[in-house]
This record gives sequence, C-alpha cells and structure tokens, in this order.
Amino acid sequence: MTYLFNQPEAFVNEMIQGFAAAHRNHILPVDGGVIRCHKAKPGQVVVVIGGGSGHYPAFGGLVGQGLAHGAAMGNVFASPSAHQICNVALAANTGGGIVFCYGNYAGDVLNFNQAQERLQAQGIDVRAVVVTDDIAAAPPAERHLRRGIAGTLPVFKAAGAAADAGESLDEVCRIATEANARVRTLGVAFSGCTLPGARQPLFDVSHGKMAVGMGIHGEPGLHQMDALDADGLAEMLFDKLMQDIPPVIDHPEGARVGAILNSLGSVAQEELYVVYRRVDQLLRGRGLVIVEPVVDRVITSFDMAGVSLTLFWLNDELEHYWLAPADTPAFKRSIVSGPLDDPAGHTALIQPIARQHVTTGSRDSQKAAAVILEALESAMYIIDTQREELGRLDAVAGDGDHGIGMQRGLTAAVDAARKVRAAQAGAGTLLTAAGDAWAACAGGTSGALWGVMLCSLGHVLGDTVMPDTATVATGVATALSEVKQRGKAQPGDKTLVDVLQPFAAALDQAVARGISVAVAWKDAADVAHDAAQKTRDLLPRIGRARPHAEKSIGTPDPGAVSLALVIGSVGEVIRRHCA
Amino acid sequence: MTYLFNQPEAFVNEMIQGFAAAHRNHILPVDGGVIRCHKAKPGQVVVVIGGGSGHYPAFGGLVGQGLAHGAAMGNVFASPSAHQICNVALAANTGGGIVFCYGNYAGDVLNFNQAQERLQAQGIDVRAVVVTDDIAAAPPAERHLRRGIAGTLPVFKAAGAAADAGESLDEVCRIATEANARVRTLGVAFSGCTLPGARQPLFDVSHGKMAVGMGIHGEPGLHQMDALDADGLAEMLFDKLMQDIPPVIDHPEGARVGAILNSLGSVAQEELYVVYRRVDQLLRGRGLVIVEPVVDRVITSFDMAGVSLTLFWLNDELEHYWLAPADTPAFKRSIVSGPLDDPAGHTALIQPIARQHVTTGSRDSQKAAAVILEALESAMYIIDTQREELGRLDAVAGDGDHGIGMQRGLTAAVDAARKVRAAQAGAGTLLTAAGDAWAACAGGTSGALWGVMLCSLGHVLGDTVMPDTATVATGVATALSEVKQRGKAQPGDKTLVDVLQPFAAALDQAVARGISVAVAWKDAADVAHDAAQKTRDLLPRIGRARPHAEKSIGTPDPGAVSLALVIGSVGEVIRRHCA
Repeated sequence: MTYLFNQPEAFVNEMIQGFAAAHRNHILPVDGGVIRCHKAKPGQVVVVIGGGSGHYPAFGGLVGQGLAHGAAMGNVFASPSAHQICNVALAANTGGGIVFCYGNYAGDVLNFNQAQERLQAQGIDVRAVVVTDDIAAAPPAERHLRRGIAGTLPVFKAAGAAADAGESLDEVCRIATEANARVRTLGVAFSGCTLPGARQPLFDVSHGKMAVGMGIHGEPGLHQMDALDADGLAEMLFDKLMQDIPPVIDHPEGARVGAILNSLGSVAQEELYVVYRRVDQLLRGRGLVIVEPVVDRVITSFDMAGVSLTLFWLNDELEHYWLAPADTPAFKRSIVSGPLDDPAGHTALIQPIARQHVTTGSRDSQKAAAVILEALESAMYIIDTQREELGRLDAVAGDGDHGIGMQRGLTAAVDAARKVRAAQAGAGTLLTAAGDAWAACAGGTSGALWGVMLCSLGHVLGDTVMPDTATVATGVATALSEVKQRGKAQPGDKTLVDVLQPFAAALDQAVARGISVAVAWKDAADVAHDAAQKTRDLLPRIGRARPHAEKSIGTPDPGAVSLALVIGSVGEVIRRHCA
Repeated sequence: MTYLFNQPEAFVNEMIQGFAAAHRNHILPVDGGVIRCHKAKPGQVVVVIGGGSGHYPAFGGLVGQGLAHGAAMGNVFASPSAHQICNVALAANTGGGIVFCYGNYAGDVLNFNQAQERLQAQGIDVRAVVVTDDIAAAPPAERHLRRGIAGTLPVFKAAGAAADAGESLDEVCRIATEANARVRTLGVAFSGCTLPGARQPLFDVSHGKMAVGMGIHGEPGLHQMDALDADGLAEMLFDKLMQDIPPVIDHPEGARVGAILNSLGSVAQEELYVVYRRVDQLLRGRGLVIVEPVVDRVITSFDMAGVSLTLFWLNDELEHYWLAPADTPAFKRSIVSGPLDDPAGHTALIQPIARQHVTTGSRDSQKAAAVILEALESAMYIIDTQREELGRLDAVAGDGDHGIGMQRGLTAAVDAARKVRAAQAGAGTLLTAAGDAWAACAGGTSGALWGVMLCSLGHVLGDTVMPDTATVATGVATALSEVKQRGKAQPGDKTLVDVLQPFAAALDQAVARGISVAVAWKDAADVAHDAAQKTRDLLPRIGRARPHAEKSIGTPDPGAVSLALVIGSVGEVIRRHCA
C-alpha cells in the first residue's frame, strides 16, 4: 500500500516538488515536469521523455547528463498532456531539434503526437521514438504494438548519450530506433499496487501465483501460474527472452548484452541479487557476454511486487552509449573501469586465519578429548532433534533462527573437533578448535558466545591433565566470566547467562563437596535445566534486538534452553564414560 | 513478504554471489563478505564495515571508492562472525591499519571486538568507531548505548573518504568519531518484515498505526501512535531531531546539514519525495542550509514499511568528506556541481504555449458561445455530482480516477471558456479554448480526447454563424473522426467511441429530417444514453491499460457514461434556450 501522502489529488505535484528540492543542483522543475539544471549546448539535440507518474525512477529520475534532457510527468498512471509535454520540450530545447522518447501506451502516443504537431507548427523539428520492448504484449510480428517497460532505460540512454555527444537529429533518432530494435523485456507480478488514498489495490494477483507478462499498470499478460522460486523464475524469463532474439542477431553465442533485472517496487534488492545470480549463470552458460548489468528499480509500479528481465543486444555503437557516463538522480554510471587486471592477485592476498598447529595432547588429555568429542556429537544430536522447537521459542520475540544457528555452529564444531582429535589433540586444543569453528560458522551473538565458552573451557583444561571436578568448575567459571564481560549481559537479562551462572555455581559447590565430575555435572545439569525454565518469568533487557520483548514473558529464552540441553546431553556422555 | 528465494538457508550466500556477479568490475567476494576490486594503495588506511544481512545497501552495497574498502556480511539479521570479519579485513588490508566501523548492536560489538583482538595479536593496528545515531534508543546522556541506523552512511563515508585521501589511522578515527558525534536519526515503522521462507512477519505494527523509533530489526522504540500523513510525519521527525542537536552546535540557524530521508524497504521513492518536500521546507524555515541531501534506501529491513530522517551537522572538514565523490554499487556521488549560476535564466527560457489572440465573434456566434458556456457549466455540475460513481465504474477495470480527471478537465475548460467569453469570443474560439484547457489540465487519454472533441467541434462551428443542425452534426462527425484516428479506438472497444459514433449518426439522420438543433440533440442524447449502457456487454480491447478487463463485463465504460452524461446535460441547456 501507499503509506505516505497528504491529499491524494496533490500527490504528484508534491512528489515533483520534493523531488526537485532533493536534487536542486541537478534538476529544475517546470510546468509539466522537470529539465536538467545544466542546459544542453546551443544547437544540440535534446531528448524529452515522459509518461504517467508512479513509475519512479521513470521518468523524472532519469533526467541528467548522459540521459534525458527533460521529462514530462503526468498524473498517477496517466499520460502527461500535450501542453505539459510542449512546456517541458520548450524549456529543454536549445534549437537543435527534439527527440521524444516514451513507452508505447495509447495515452502517451496521443499526447506526444499532439505535442509534436504543435511544436512542428512552431517550426521546431521534433521526432519520436516509441519504445516497444515488452514481449508479452504482442507477438514478434506485431512488435510495434508492444508496450514499453524497463527497455525504456537503454533506449533513453542511447538517445541521451548520443545527443550529448553532439550527434545530429537524424543520428540520435537512428541510434534510439536501433536500440529499441535490440531490446526485449519480460516481467512477472506477484501482487498489485495500491494508489495513494485508495482502499483497495488497483489490481491483484492471487497469493502464491504470479502473472506472467502483466504490465506496469496491471495490464493482463500471458497467463497466471504458480509462483516460481528465484532460480525457476530466472530460468523462465531467460528461456522466453531467448525465444525472441532480435532478427539482427545471427548467433547468440558470443553476443554482448546489457542486462537489466528490475524490481517493480516491493521486491527487495537482496531478492533481485538472488535471482540475478542465476541469470548470470544462464547468460554465461549460453556464451553471452554481459556488459555492465543493472540490477535495480528502473521502472516501477508503486508497491507492486514483481520483477522484469531485459536483454539489450548490443552492437559496438550501442555498447559505447550503454557504457557512457550518466549522472541523474536515479541512474549514475561512472566511467566504467575495465575488468581487473589480475583478480587472482587479490584473492591470493587473502590470508586465511592461521591454522593452529595441532599440539599433541598427553595420553590423559587425549582420553578426555575423546569424551568431549562424543559429548559434542551428542549435543549436536539433541540440538538437531530440538531445532524446530528452538526456532519456535526464538520466534516469540526474535527472528526464529536460533535453532538453525545452533545446528550450524555445532556441526562446524564437531567437524573441527574430529579433525584435531584425529591429529591427537588434547582436550584444550579440541575445545578451542571446536569453539573457533562454531563462532566462525554460526555468526551472530549466540555463535560468538558459544565460541567464547568452549575456548575458555579449553584454555583451562589444557592438553596435559585429565580434568577433575575442580578444573572443570574453574573452566566453566572462566567461561561465565568471559561471556558476561564480552556479551555485556547480566543475570536476569533473559540470556544464556541465566543458565550459565547457576550451573557454574553448582559446579563450584560440588568441588567443596569433593564429588566426581560425572556426579557434579549431573547435579549442576539439573540446576541448569530448572534455570532455563525459570527464564520464562524474565523480560529481556530493553534495547536488545528482540522486537516482541514483552511477548516473551511466559516463554523461556531459547539461548538458555539450548545451553541447558547441551549441558544435559554432555552430562549423559560423561556419566557413561565414568560409570 | 519476501517473494524470491530458493532454500531460505542459502539466501545470504546466493545474494552475495548475485551481488558480486552484478558488480564484477567493482566488487570482489571473499569468504565472509566483499572487498573493492581496486585495492587501496599500499600503506593506506582501510575501512571495514559490516553487520547482518537484510539491510541492503548496508553493508555490501557501500563498498567502493570513497566509501568502505570491505564489508563483512553476516547472516540474515545476525552479526558476521569474528572469523568473517578477520577474513574481510585481511583481504582489504594494505598495511596501513584498519578502521572497523559498524552500528552499535550487541552481536556486532562482540564479534568485531574479537576480530580486533585477533588482528592486533597478528600485529595489525585496528581501531573501531561504533555508530550510535538512533535517538530513540537511549537518552542523550547515554548516547553510547544508542543503536546505529541510517547515520552509519555519513560516518562510513567520512571514514572512507578520509582514508582514500591518505589520512593517518589516528586522523581517520578522529574524523569518523567526529562524524558520529554529529549525526542523529529517528525512524518510524508502519509494518514489520517477513524473512525469506518465514510464514509470519518477524514483527508487526497494527494497521493505521506507526511505531516511533522502532529499530531495523523491530526493536521496540518510543511508542506507537496513529499513523501521520506525509507532512505530519516530516514535522514530527524534524521536531524530535531538533530537540537533540549535538552539543557542539551553538545555534542551529545558519548551520549546514546533510539530510538523509531513508526508506526502510516498502515505502516507495515517490512517497519519500512527498515527505522530503516538507522536510526541506522545515529545515529551510529554521535557517538550516541543506547540503546534498540523500533521499533513498540507505539502510533497510527487508520489506519493512517505514522511513527515517537523519541530520548530519557538518563542519567544514565533514562537509568536504560528505561531498567527496563516491562510487559504490548503491551509493554514487559525482563531483558535486555548485548551484546553478543563474537558475532564473533558465526559467526565463520557458516559452508558454502562445496564447491565442481572442478573435471577436459575430453577434450570432457570441450568442451561441453563451449557450455553450452554460452547457459546459451544466456539464461540470453533473460531473461533480457523478464524480464518485464514475470513479467506482472506473475502478472495476482501471485506476478509478476517471471522475477526478473529468472534473479536473471540465473545471479548466469552464474557466478558459469564461475568460474568452468575457473577451467576446465566438463559439469556435470558446470551444477551442475550452478543449485546450481541458487537455492541458486533465492529461491522460481521456483529457486528450475531450480536447480533440471540443476543438474539432469548435473548428467547424467557427466564430461567425449561428450553428444549425447541419453544422452541429458536421462538427460532431469531425470530432468522431478525429477521436478514432488519434485514439486508435474502434466501435466495440468499450471506449467513448461507442457513444460518440451512434450519437453522430443520430445527428446526421436528424439533418435529413430537417429538425431543430434542440430536438435533434435531445433525440441523439437518448441514443447516446442507451449506447453508454450497452457498453456493459463489451470487453475492452486486450493490451489497453485495463488490469481487470474481463471483470468489466457487466459494467458500462466510465468514459462512455461520462460522455453520455455531458451530452444529456448539454441537451437540457440547448432546449431551455431554444424553447
């Protein structure tokens, strides 16, 4: 939906005012749209684009050096009037003639044609190049009936860059026409869009479906189908575009293409990149050479969720203009640096974190290491089985990824522990390796704290002695102290400290009682279990990244629960070995 | 929601791969994040940023010349691990020391601190500047506890630009620290966000409400309140930021500020500009000088709907770095051109469409003009009363703005007609003036076609004769022919042609029958009324911008209905005058 507006009728005017205010050094508002602040040279050809509003950056956002000289900006989804177009054109004109460039829509054709007639009647030479890149809108034989969507960008850019290079009116038209002949786009939509002040979406797509070929005003496309995943969508768009290669291209292999992956509004940049990953693979797989792709919002439809893929089949001349610098509010291209001379030289610079040389542990410590490895494996097993429950607990107040993070960390920890165990590591080295791997692979706060706990314990246990109750208690106490210091959490903050502290205290008391590690751990594990359950009653400290902090009352902290689970499963393993 | 992904667990890795593929000439992926392709000079300070993913362009999108040298990219909303950070830092390092720069979140602090210790242990000088710009996160006295949000951009930029300028490690840290001391942000959220693969939003905001100060992971902020309109929101954010001016600023009047209006995801660029319009007014109203504002997505939270406003209180040094060129995938700043020498010189170039000299009409034609003006006023009245119904009809298959467009066009037409009528225009001049004004102010297809109809009729009626039935019939026939030619619509396409054609035919028959204009018009108006109703049974031609074309069966075309309404009301006026 549209969240921010004042009077809906004033939306476009206020938008243009804000747009001009934000780009004061580049854009000048005129009645009917905007022009560049820095006017073209006298006698130069100027390129005037335009269309309805609601498609930002189309059209005002594309005015600036190397692109358009002016944009007529109509009302929401409505063509600018011939009067507006004339005004913008006259403001941009420096006497060298004007090229109108716009997408093929009935209202735009009507109004741009009228404007063209009026200006011609004033003795100004005005030409028009209409963009028709949407392959869903008509079959190849009727290309002239197709709509203009994201393919407008390369056509506008070719025209604007050629005009700024001082080309003649004939040449600018020829180049823009050639660009249009070589550009193809296909889009899909997952949702409609809701215009400012409207209570209902202007159009809609059923949940879980996608409309293939739907236009940027919701024009019906080819068909609806079940929504594909990112890779599937990339493949579908690629396949269909490869069935509509411009006739001038003899063999796609070796062809050079500009690619545009466009978000129609609500699809996030991260999602575009996930799709682009597959697009890149597919284009390269077919032997195409991708030239400076654009992955961005290029032509939108308010908050519509959807994407389109454009292929711009280059020749030398068009590649030159595609790569030419541009500086507009929404599209900037610096002088493109060539590919890196020696990218491998870079990667070679990356020094992996120095692998610790595995110190061979004493026989006793190797024995302990074997038990610890088994304990880690056992912990991995219990966390695997509890992963979804931990995610559920985490989702109450957080982002629900605690179970996945624990699993990722433990898997890496076990893997590292197995490796150093095979190299005869003692308990200390094994725990340190496991802790480092856990932190490295799990990331986040929890990963870092688990890394700290295992490493602290490892440093105290060392690689020589068979750890007794006192050593273990000291190790856990050290872990607690490190976790509190680094994690800045105190008891009562509803974190794993609320389990670790009573667990450490229980082990400490066990030392005084002179009992075995197995028994001490078992008793302390019971304490830990209860402590984890008690975190139900706590409220997370304000300011932490827990959106629904208050909702978590009544639910134990997932970090506390998973620590208690690990402690419990470790206790089982110790008991088995000491029995 | 998130629409496009494959396996949710693979989302971040695939995103980074696609990101790197899209920016091959600028970005190099390394284990843990990305670095610049073009490495810093040997011995130069490098700036390494980072944080969880899901905030694009933060953080990978901000790597490039004039900004960061590398970014550690963690999992979704999770800090990168110390291992990842070390990897990125080592890959970017050229021996001149490293500045870590990141937002103040527990997980990031923990992992960046660990990475710092590890690198220092390897003899690398590493410093850290933690960004704390979110005024909602803690009171001014506890600034160090505040979170880092959109204010990260100016701090990163100050650090990166200073490093690229060859400043020492001490200097880069001092400059970044000073930047952080001078940046303040406040945000609001209207909705939560849904992570890839999740069925529920991670957090949410009640419909019609906004959460003031909510963090980019949904951290609770100050309070919830009824959502404000665009101006109200700008005022609220401005007021609160002006209550938290950095202590170093003595008087806000005359101060120079960089401003950032950031969309957290789903708020469209058009909406940002509507809000920015008011921000600009407010800042200028308080005597502040805005320096190159940024109105864009700067730090997001997937598809969260929300915005934040940042004020960056500049001194000379920071202004220099704020304006310095930058070239990253998501943030590019060209060498900023000064304000235009003579902006007025531009506006002066705009030649308004030459006002037609008003030809005085004959006495007969002036009489006819009086009737036509009254007819237009009557049409305006009927359209005013039917505006909502026309909007409702239009919303069935289109964007629901037909009533508003008709109202806008008729108001302008009546206004223009009154002016030329006062200057003794004849019927032809009056109709032409009304048609031009209608088309200019209403825009879109409908505005253009109404302009064509009135102008065609005007040309035939001329400024000398009292129009008889034959003249009127010829005028309407001309209008029909022009509309068909320019609008490219045929009878049966469910447009106003489906009314205009039978109306013209009925007038034509009336000529043969030799009846008066009043009677002829009345009969033809009945035909037009019926024809408008019959458009219920038609299907709009495929390819037009009618999203729900098929749904419109059973509903008459709004353009046909409004034409019939105008014809009807004009008939009443003619009859009154001829009776």
